[in-house]
Amino acid sequence: MDLSADWVVGFVDGEGCFFVGINRQPEMRVGYQVLPEFRIVQHERDVNVLYALKRFFRAGVVRRNHDDRYELRIRGLKSLMNVVAFFEQHPLKTKKHLDFLKFRDIIRLMQQGEHLHPEGLQRIIAIAMEMNRKDKPKAAAILAELKAATG
Amino acid sequence: MDLSADWVVGFVDGEGCFFVGINRQPEMRVGYQVLPEFRIVQHERDVNVLYALKRFFRAGVVRRNHDDRYELRIRGLKSLMNVVAFFEQHPLKTKKHLDFLKFRDIIRLMQQGEHLHPEGLQRIIAIAMEMNRKDKPKAAAILAELKAATG
Repeated sequence: MDLSADWVVGFVDGEGCFFVGINRQPEMRVGYQVLPEFRIVQHERDVNVLYALKRFFRAGVVRRNHDDRYELRIRGLKSLMNVVAFFEQHPLKTKKHLDFLKFRDIIRLMQQGEHLHPEGLQRIIAIAMEMNRKDKPKAAAILAELKAATG
Repeated sequence: MDLSADWVVGFVDGEGCFFVGINRQPEMRVGYQVLPEFRIVQHERDVNVLYALKRFFRAGVVRRNHDDRYELRIRGLKSLMNVVAFFEQHPLKTKKHLDFLKFRDIIRLMQQGEHLHPEGLQRIIAIAMEMNRKDKPKAAAILAELKAATG
């Protein structure tokens, strides 16, 4: 299955998700891990579309999400920089574009190592909290902790 | 907002729905109305994408679906023949293509007036019952009634 850039943009406008998780990681110096990922979930009948997208982006893993749902999940700064470059060249048309811009900002901050010290981490979490709707209570709690620790 | 054909295919692979409703309509000679429609639902923040799709297909109405959801809904045999022609030229890549093929068959049968007599109507309902998952109990009940009436 060959995918064109425009088809990929249209499909991701419908089905893609830019997500940044913030996880407590006591063994890391800063205490938290920033985990950005790009994800597309499909019913198992369309798992071949996920494999085609994996080939398209030359990155990611296809795995079961839950029940009869599968996902292509792309993690890793280098792979995500390629994903970001693609959607800069081929902008999304829905409001998902706004999430993408925040995702891109976080990826850039991580390229600069900002996630490795408390002040940069606070900036990243503040941006992540404005994305989609997930993880906000947890991110807010972490942000409060960091502010208390650095403030 | 300008949409390319490939973007539209990708977006519809994610968000589009081909649907054929069968409704009791005692005032029609055959007793039932076949109501095919092509539908795309979006959160209200992306209602402008629905208007762009309406311009793209030169057909349909944008209306509230429920709560904060809006839909572009295309009905009418002439408009749907254009939609069918588009997706024949630009095939969907997900398994939604299979629903499209059944939808296309029903549109063609309707062009030939098959929905206006009981035998043709039975053929149409039998195809509609194999599409998505909606309306099957109702379609099955109608099919049983028709078979009893014509058998």
